[in-house]
Amino acid sequence: MANGMIHSEWSVIEEGFDPSRQKACESIFSLGNGHMGQRANFEEGYSGETLQGSYVAGIYYPDKTRVGWWKNGYPEYFAKVLNSPNWIGIGVEVNGAPLDLAKCPAEGFRRVLDMKEGTLSRSFVAAMPDGKRVRVHAVRFLSMADPEIGVVRYEVAALDAVRLKLTAFIDGDVRNEDANYNEVFWNILETDCGPGRGFLLARTRKLDFRVGFAMKLDCEIDGAPAAVAPACRQTPSLAANVYELELAKGGVVALYKYVAVATSEDHDKDDLKTKAGALAAAAHAAGFAALLEAHRAKWADIWSHSDIVVEGDVEAQQGIRFNIFHLNQTYTGADQRLNIGPKGFTGEKYGGGTYWDTEAFCIPFFVSTAPSRVTRNLLVYRYKHLAKAIENAAKLGFAGGAALYPMVTMNGEECHNEWEITFEEIHRNGAIAFAIYNYIRHTGDEAYLADCGLEVLIGIARFWSQRATFSAERGKFVILGVTGPNEYENNVNNNWYTNTVACWCLDYAREALATVERRWPQRYAEIVAASGLDVAVETACWAQIGAGMYFPYDPRLDLFLQQDGWLDKERIVAADLDPSERPINQHWSWDRILRSPFIKQADVLQGIYLFEEKYDTAVIARHFDYYEARTVHESSLSPCIHAVLAARLGKMEKAYELYLRTSRLDLDDYNHEVEEGLHITSMAGSWLAIVEGFGGKRVRDGKLFLNPLIHPKWRRYAFRILFKDHPVEVAVVKDRVDILYTGPERIVINVYGEDYRLAPGERLTVGRQAPKAEGRRSLAGGRSRSLLGKG
Amino acid sequence: MANGMIHSEWSVIEEGFDPSRQKACESIFSLGNGHMGQRANFEEGYSGETLQGSYVAGIYYPDKTRVGWWKNGYPEYFAKVLNSPNWIGIGVEVNGAPLDLAKCPAEGFRRVLDMKEGTLSRSFVAAMPDGKRVRVHAVRFLSMADPEIGVVRYEVAALDAVRLKLTAFIDGDVRNEDANYNEVFWNILETDCGPGRGFLLARTRKLDFRVGFAMKLDCEIDGAPAAVAPACRQTPSLAANVYELELAKGGVVALYKYVAVATSEDHDKDDLKTKAGALAAAAHAAGFAALLEAHRAKWADIWSHSDIVVEGDVEAQQGIRFNIFHLNQTYTGADQRLNIGPKGFTGEKYGGGTYWDTEAFCIPFFVSTAPSRVTRNLLVYRYKHLAKAIENAAKLGFAGGAALYPMVTMNGEECHNEWEITFEEIHRNGAIAFAIYNYIRHTGDEAYLADCGLEVLIGIARFWSQRATFSAERGKFVILGVTGPNEYENNVNNNWYTNTVACWCLDYAREALATVERRWPQRYAEIVAASGLDVAVETACWAQIGAGMYFPYDPRLDLFLQQDGWLDKERIVAADLDPSERPINQHWSWDRILRSPFIKQADVLQGIYLFEEKYDTAVIARHFDYYEARTVHESSLSPCIHAVLAARLGKMEKAYELYLRTSRLDLDDYNHEVEEGLHITSMAGSWLAIVEGFGGKRVRDGKLFLNPLIHPKWRRYAFRILFKDHPVEVAVVKDRVDILYTGPERIVINVYGEDYRLAPGERLTVGRQAPKAEGRRSLAGGRSRSLLGKG
Repeated sequence: MANGMIHSEWSVIEEGFDPSRQKACESIFSLGNGHMGQRANFEEGYSGETLQGSYVAGIYYPDKTRVGWWKNGYPEYFAKVLNSPNWIGIGVEVNGAPLDLAKCPAEGFRRVLDMKEGTLSRSFVAAMPDGKRVRVHAVRFLSMADPEIGVVRYEVAALDAVRLKLTAFIDGDVRNEDANYNEVFWNILETDCGPGRGFLLARTRKLDFRVGFAMKLDCEIDGAPAAVAPACRQTPSLAANVYELELAKGGVVALYKYVAVATSEDHDKDDLKTKAGALAAAAHAAGFAALLEAHRAKWADIWSHSDIVVEGDVEAQQGIRFNIFHLNQTYTGADQRLNIGPKGFTGEKYGGGTYWDTEAFCIPFFVSTAPSRVTRNLLVYRYKHLAKAIENAAKLGFAGGAALYPMVTMNGEECHNEWEITFEEIHRNGAIAFAIYNYIRHTGDEAYLADCGLEVLIGIARFWSQRATFSAERGKFVILGVTGPNEYENNVNNNWYTNTVACWCLDYAREALATVERRWPQRYAEIVAASGLDVAVETACWAQIGAGMYFPYDPRLDLFLQQDGWLDKERIVAADLDPSERPINQHWSWDRILRSPFIKQADVLQGIYLFEEKYDTAVIARHFDYYEARTVHESSLSPCIHAVLAARLGKMEKAYELYLRTSRLDLDDYNHEVEEGLHITSMAGSWLAIVEGFGGKRVRDGKLFLNPLIHPKWRRYAFRILFKDHPVEVAVVKDRVDILYTGPERIVINVYGEDYRLAPGERLTVGRQAPKAEGRRSLAGGRSRSLLGKG
Repeated sequence: MANGMIHSEWSVIEEGFDPSRQKACESIFSLGNGHMGQRANFEEGYSGETLQGSYVAGIYYPDKTRVGWWKNGYPEYFAKVLNSPNWIGIGVEVNGAPLDLAKCPAEGFRRVLDMKEGTLSRSFVAAMPDGKRVRVHAVRFLSMADPEIGVVRYEVAALDAVRLKLTAFIDGDVRNEDANYNEVFWNILETDCGPGRGFLLARTRKLDFRVGFAMKLDCEIDGAPAAVAPACRQTPSLAANVYELELAKGGVVALYKYVAVATSEDHDKDDLKTKAGALAAAAHAAGFAALLEAHRAKWADIWSHSDIVVEGDVEAQQGIRFNIFHLNQTYTGADQRLNIGPKGFTGEKYGGGTYWDTEAFCIPFFVSTAPSRVTRNLLVYRYKHLAKAIENAAKLGFAGGAALYPMVTMNGEECHNEWEITFEEIHRNGAIAFAIYNYIRHTGDEAYLADCGLEVLIGIARFWSQRATFSAERGKFVILGVTGPNEYENNVNNNWYTNTVACWCLDYAREALATVERRWPQRYAEIVAASGLDVAVETACWAQIGAGMYFPYDPRLDLFLQQDGWLDKERIVAADLDPSERPINQHWSWDRILRSPFIKQADVLQGIYLFEEKYDTAVIARHFDYYEARTVHESSLSPCIHAVLAARLGKMEKAYELYLRTSRLDLDDYNHEVEEGLHITSMAGSWLAIVEGFGGKRVRDGKLFLNPLIHPKWRRYAFRILFKDHPVEVAVVKDRVDILYTGPERIVINVYGEDYRLAPGERLTVGRQAPKAEGRRSLAGGRSRSLLGKG
């Protein structure tokens, strides 16, 4: 990347301060720990262009809907992630003048996101208006070990003798940039201060979420506790401590700010002052070094089962680690009420709500890189929203326990208000069902069906059984009026993908019923009773629809058609497009896009990706060649799926090109929009492109399959995954694949079509093959060091 | 109608004041004169529920668009009709207490809209808080003779001796209820006062429209000029005169308020004070009686060629006159820059913009009831917007002079922002072309093609030729991604109506080219040169598309299908609907409506209505029976078209039922929404239902056709129309049809299939026939008195 960004394997580094890139870098250098997130805003004041962003997971605002034309069924509100009180702030005045990088020239500016350790640091020398200079070094982290704790160490070294004023504060006077009617979302209920401490209690103006922010401060001068008593400064929306110091030339002051962020989601809402105060005090007592050490240890654990190493391609290495890092910052699986917004904790866009991105993209990542409870909690999130999904379907006219999960949600209620998406992009129900299946095949946790999954599957099957209608004309069931994953088509009939996932859901619900009846008969009886399921009648109906569904297909092309009428479109392909008119979504009117044959993201191919085992290579290749040629990849979720399929077909250059489109999307700011936040959910797609694409990882019938390819540019790559919660490491070089399994019991892994039984700790080496060729086995004896180190 | 509304042939009368109906009555009793309009707000203050509405034609505000999700091609603004400064206001205080009917009990309240004369009057006796009583009688009109003048006569009679304060004012402190971001739309530039006069100059905050309001006042006591000098009261937004009077018991004071409303559309914007002042002074000099007389004379002229008499059915009589009255109040044809908003001057809804309603509904009314220049001006309105229509098409990706007229507009620019309508409801282009044809066949004014029409037709033909695309699959041209007149379907392919009007436009454009080439060769050459038309190439393309268009059709049903995939819908009809779920647009989610087979308004039948002569009775009947059964008539524009077709098929009861649905829609407030304003454009449909429906009036090949039916409930009905600017009166009783022609030259009129040649002033009597039966002729000799009197 240009503009001072340095390629580095474990870090993101910016050298030299460029105000025009500040908002972009605020996104890129964001920190998060699942409980909260923080854009890389400066601690000290900054009067330049900035998007202030402090986010607390689970705290949102139901902002009044803004629509052009109301349609029946639209929700009353769109939930917004909240820019919360600013807890990182430390105002700096030098000889009475504010330190502000928009006004004070900075030398040697360097900002580093250390992805291995999860810290953000920044250093520079600022020249003040009076010519005096100070060197600043700031470090912060949001503790992974103690998610309610954020820590800042802010050091100022005097290069000239100066009078210094440091104001450490919590500021409740904050707004969202994205507010439909420009309203303020917070009331500040209380501020309180004492020497070395401060507190602020904020309440959302609707829904009564409360968040308490407590800070404890330490000040060191030249490495020893400072003998200064800070002054308290308190307003109705600010709690601050002010340190006034005289620093001799060469003197160094370090301010430590330990902040606890405690919410009414986790604590009694009337007890937040006490709780936050105790948490901050405990953090303060533990101290910076111990907190950082615990935080690092957590990150080491995360990397131990999710890292990918790429050798010979620093950009690719940095890109994939950046993606894995941010995914883990966004979601840790610790809280069943939380999920993953498309921008995570890095911006306000998309309102922080949950989309099908979670099930279709993030779950395939987490189910292979995190302990199974993490994915299970993502599934439970939807389970807990089942009643709301049933309500949502009822609002649209469905009955009898049919469930339609929302397109965008915080608490299970629909937030989105664009009829062609809200009401019609119903394939999301399929992704939610498929995630249950995907979780179980990866983890073997079939009991999840009995615990939660079956109820969700029944609700979803009921929805499809009502949403499909019988066409007397065709003598088949049809699904009219939908929007498929390709959102460049709206209100189409018989979207092949939607019909395909609908049928799959109807089948899988019946299969799940049978499984639970067989293995957990009592729970089965409970579920049948509670859901009022007329097993014989309803499952017969599901079977009838599943067997009688209409699928658009053209016999001459031997092709599944994206939807009814597809072949009426003009016969042009993406290569025919004038490059100056791309992306078409920035150059063409909406109706031109809709009428064109251009596809935003995988649609038929999304179905082929999901159900790949049903199709032979010729079928996959025919559909890939036809549809990819018409795909403009104008969703961040598009290239990854195509990369996986391209790799499956041995189209290495295509796979690599598409991989590049995803993995550095944000780091290199391809679309000039990273200032709005990072594409968190599509980051999972970069991982898929490597592990499922180049690595050829699949899971079928409870078994792990690998078919690794390697691009000529790469010397070696290696990835760690968890399979049934046990680590598998895979390293690929030009002529060899090494596999190290460290689970507790024997496992069978299929490599290049051949099964290998591995003992715990066993390392397997197989000659590298082109796809579909025969495998050769070579077992390396004994235990081995990790494959993720340099090969 | 319940609630004190009295049925009367020439008036709308409300007896007894019901605050819960005030907003509804404010709409119903609205006045207008083409230049301005005024809801029936009270002159004196009213603290109850009210929608203040003073509207000035042509003055609008480009309110910033409000959308949920922006789509490329959406306009930046939605034009809003402006609630303008209040010029009717006369504050009344009695012994220091304000007269306010929300607080002071009124006896004998009576409000009368005299439709023959175009006046609104109101009288009541109010009891003041101190027990004193006054009788008020207020009359006002917006002069049809002098459209910049509005006049109020406000009389207060003292039933007890009282101290009276009358404050006649112009108030610029006004807002729109419909403002996307709650903004104020006016700046008041100047107020000025003197005894007996006042002035206010308002400027719109965007676009710099300016409106000057000048008032001149006269005060009479007991019939003689009052010897009181009013005090001036002036604020930055108010210009007022205050009259303080002592009235003895039985004393009567009458305040005359002559107001001129002059705009920068008609006058130099820097000269509005002088102009408005002079206009008000002239009105004042002419006096109330003379102004009223000139106003009445204009209305007498309007009724002389547009009245419909219904005997034996007072409700029907009042209903149709109410419709004719409001249509004429809204549009007089005096100004080519003006058009007809769906609510006219009676409310803010739909922003006062121009829709296809004008061409599809209002032009068929005006072309038969007003001098041809009126309709011609409506056509010229679109001609003047041609460049904007070409720009609009260019924004959507069309080129080479293709024109897409906007869905909603004030100045030719698109205002609407709902992609499925804005970009897709393109059949509006067809209505605009058809209106040219319709005008010419009624008036014989073929020269309009050379003057203006041909250029519009070329732009429209170019649009269709690009919008239609070739389907290699079908070997036919298709039109993908449209919304037909039935807005309960969106983004469908090959809407039969749209494809039908598109082909008609392509044919008619070629025909018009040939006509102009033959009759006005020089003008033809100019138009071809100016539009850059490659005659040979482009017309060949138009012919090819017109001949090669695909039309959805089912051979088994022998039915034109509304769109591709129509027969996949569930096979249910409107009679199957649970009455408690109607109207479905208030009970069903939008997606349920879209997926259902229920039709909002005529769609295939709109095409059969337009091109009726192409189809024999069996075809019309088959399509009527099929589609009307699925039509829920949830547009005010729906029942009328069906009434005409039902009458065409001899389905008298159906036609009558559908006629009733339109004609008293607002008077009886069927949908409980009349408070928002009247359905002005659909009022033209009521006229169509009688004249084209029951009267069977058609124009083909320059000849007038009549096939009158009469409903058993009606003793007699008669209508006046203009044909080629000459009056034709038609009176129908059970057994006879009388026709009186008063044009200057002989005419041939076809009645019940037989041609009759009528001399000027000749009266023809024909025996009444069932449709399609043979006609009998009986010529009554000599001239006759008008048939519109009682028969």
